[in-house]
Amino acid sequence: MAWDKKDLLGLEYLSAGEILTVLDTARSFSEVSTRSIKKVPALRGKTVVNLFYEASTRTRASFELAEKRLSADIVNMNVATSSVTKGETLLDTVKNLCAYQIDVIVIRHAMSGAPMYLARNVESSIVNAGDGTHEHPTQALLDMYTLREKLGDLRGRKVAIVGDIAHSRVARSNIWGLTKLGARVTVVGPPTLIPREIEQMGVEVSYDLEAALKDADAVNMLRIQREREKLSLFPSLREYAKLFGLSKDKMAGLPAGIIVMHPGPINRGVELSASVADGPNSVILEQVTNSLAVRMAVLFLVTGGTSLHPEHLSA
Amino acid sequence: MAWDKKDLLGLEYLSAGEILTVLDTARSFSEVSTRSIKKVPALRGKTVVNLFYEASTRTRASFELAEKRLSADIVNMNVATSSVTKGETLLDTVKNLCAYQIDVIVIRHAMSGAPMYLARNVESSIVNAGDGTHEHPTQALLDMYTLREKLGDLRGRKVAIVGDIAHSRVARSNIWGLTKLGARVTVVGPPTLIPREIEQMGVEVSYDLEAALKDADAVNMLRIQREREKLSLFPSLREYAKLFGLSKDKMAGLPAGIIVMHPGPINRGVELSASVADGPNSVILEQVTNSLAVRMAVLFLVTGGTSLHPEHLSA
Amino acid sequence: MAWDKKDLLGLEYLSAGEILTVLDTARSFSEVSTRSIKKVPALRGKTVVNLFYEASTRTRASFELAEKRLSADIVNMNVATSSVTKGETLLDTVKNLCAYQIDVIVIRHAMSGAPMYLARNVESSIVNAGDGTHEHPTQALLDMYTLREKLGDLRGRKVAIVGDIAHSRVARSNIWGLTKLGARVTVVGPPTLIPREIEQMGVEVSYDLEAALKDADAVNMLRIQREREKLSLFPSLREYAKLFGLSKDKMAGLPAGIIVMHPGPINRGVELSASVADGPNSVILEQVTNSLAVRMAVLFLVTGGTSLHPEHLSA
Repeated sequence: MAWDKKDLLGLEYLSAGEILTVLDTARSFSEVSTRSIKKVPALRGKTVVNLFYEASTRTRASFELAEKRLSADIVNMNVATSSVTKGETLLDTVKNLCAYQIDVIVIRHAMSGAPMYLARNVESSIVNAGDGTHEHPTQALLDMYTLREKLGDLRGRKVAIVGDIAHSRVARSNIWGLTKLGARVTVVGPPTLIPREIEQMGVEVSYDLEAALKDADAVNMLRIQREREKLSLFPSLREYAKLFGLSKDKMAGLPAGIIVMHPGPINRGVELSASVADGPNSVILEQVTNSLAVRMAVLFLVTGGTSLHPEHLSA
Repeated sequence: MAWDKKDLLGLEYLSAGEILTVLDTARSFSEVSTRSIKKVPALRGKTVVNLFYEASTRTRASFELAEKRLSADIVNMNVATSSVTKGETLLDTVKNLCAYQIDVIVIRHAMSGAPMYLARNVESSIVNAGDGTHEHPTQALLDMYTLREKLGDLRGRKVAIVGDIAHSRVARSNIWGLTKLGARVTVVGPPTLIPREIEQMGVEVSYDLEAALKDADAVNMLRIQREREKLSLFPSLREYAKLFGLSKDKMAGLPAGIIVMHPGPINRGVELSASVADGPNSVILEQVTNSLAVRMAVLFLVTGGTSLHPEHLSA
Repeated sequence: MAWDKKDLLGLEYLSAGEILTVLDTARSFSEVSTRSIKKVPALRGKTVVNLFYEASTRTRASFELAEKRLSADIVNMNVATSSVTKGETLLDTVKNLCAYQIDVIVIRHAMSGAPMYLARNVESSIVNAGDGTHEHPTQALLDMYTLREKLGDLRGRKVAIVGDIAHSRVARSNIWGLTKLGARVTVVGPPTLIPREIEQMGVEVSYDLEAALKDADAVNMLRIQREREKLSLFPSLREYAKLFGLSKDKMAGLPAGIIVMHPGPINRGVELSASVADGPNSVILEQVTNSLAVRMAVLFLVTGGTSLHPEHLSA
């Protein structure tokens, strides 16, 4: 299926066909990072700005590597750690960047909807690298890419998403994407962290981890923000780990081949015990590896690469 | 006119012919950023260090993009945000950099004269990206480039510079450059922000914005530093905006084609109302776009590119 | 001698032959930085991450330039200035990086032994850019490179290392390297800054600078950390400078050709007076220049460049 969008704002706004186009394009790019010369000229002479209003090392490094392996020119602007916003509006900052004929702006912002607002007002492509509690589409795409590598077609597959559903942009993007591809999604967590209206997104809700995983093909263990503990949204990290974490003991009662995912960074001993995080069911490092191919595909598609010619992949 | 300077320290030290050489070279480079592959090999294998002792995202990003589009290798050193100066002298820091055979050091420093001091003591080219209240020559060059694109020859043209003339390196560089090219310059602002001796630079002084703009071809609205308010150099931002800001109402009384410039970032509602900043007289985003071509030209010239051959501009 | 190590962890773990292989390879690379196009394709398409858990501008800039001149793709992660470690373990952080098929991780960490721990657990090459008080092998290699350029074969040569031997990873790496190459090493400093067991490393100990330098070929003046003064490890900086610093007066009593080194940044007036730092015996800026060639050689060797073919050095 052809891609005709200039931006990637969220999986809510993509069709199943468009999601599959990203995932199929990512498969073509996945081989690049295994070469001796890990570089293709697909974005040579294009300029990408990584504009991060929230501190991030992992997502920023993943995007930066994807951009470098596509031969793009890159400028990093970490506004979170900079004292130089000087009261300028977000739109002015971005319009100024676009005046440099920037091809893509990868943006992370604490305000839900900021990428969409920008996309409507500037010509450069906007890639959402996480906006507030709204969406984190490239994370969900790499999660789904990883699932498809393991399970093939996701139609009818059951995926559980466990943790702080209420505040998680990773959860929201996964729910949009997985349901569009025909997977059955169950969200699991303490009632205080699951919003009432979530069932309207087409998911089931469970407050019992082991019951929910009994027949699941995969489980995505969200990172718990330690800050939530102070807000009394759950009794304690220890209690959370006991009820909603995965330990070796609990794994014994689950389907043998269940796929364990985590967007990272892991709180070892909370969401996952070390033996599960590093165990045979974990695909966590594969998720990281796949993040590059998925982000390369997104950057390629939003800059107008509607089909992948061999020269895009030549070294 | 040939260029034989290893550094760009300020417009005070350039002849009219040298200024025109930069501006003409910039015009040749301006087309590069409109290409699909926005890159030329003019500085391939040259090394540029961006050494910023004052926080900056805009100027640093502009220089970095100019360097990348010239294919230079770049190292960013943001000393403002770093804890690692360790008491070393500025000259030792820069001599150490030069020991790496750095071709160009782009420096921003709070001390007026720091770039000149370095230029006399090291072999690398020094480009002044703003020194104290002294000069910000590339900003003035891009302002003049923008004016020439709109007005052609600047001889006899009237340009007003409005705001905190006393503390503005942008104002000083513009005054040097514009008067050398034969323009008539009027500086406008509250008496507390205009130094007494400024007329010796060959400019007129006005404390009345509308009177000064009555017959002006262009006006450069300097950013007001909000910190100055605390120093009681003007009664309040609201009062400043009323007297020295440009609103839609005031624009009605000015020459229809007057060019409105601003070095950014804009304090909307202070120097400019939104309708003026985004209105038909504003060339503010063109200034941003032109900054790349001008900085590419400066980097090209100081590294010995005395004339521009076609291969410098081939992709 | 062939190189078969995937990592550079310390000079303790290299044979004399391996050290000489690095130094000889560095000599081949030294010429690259004197070219007009300062760049070779030896690491094209390889990815290097500079992972600095301690603030550093000098060493990081030197590595980054070495990597750029080898045409590597680079990601800088300055964890010291970042708020985003989020409690992840060091091994998880690095395993995540390695999932991106990173070829080399250059790491600086406050914990002695961190690079070795990582090297045993990941496939990427680990280059130690300084770990706690343990080793700083590339600094010692560039010191030795500089000495060999001046003295030729180091067998039987006498090198004094002066300062805070107890806390200096530079001293430890130099001692390992110099003794392996057959040099005689004397460490000099106040008794509080020289560990008792140091003689077991095969060095002589002196508390009298002028006596120790009487027949020395070279002296390496370590930077004194001003923080030590507060710990009362020496009476005062002034006293330290008097006893263990080099001034013009003291130089008069030393061998005429004695080589004066310093790893930088210099505390002028403490370890060295300005006249000595900038005088004819000083090779301090040559050390800086040589750091590039040495780091290029290390990066080349650990990524499998067992022998240097002409195409590695073509522009």
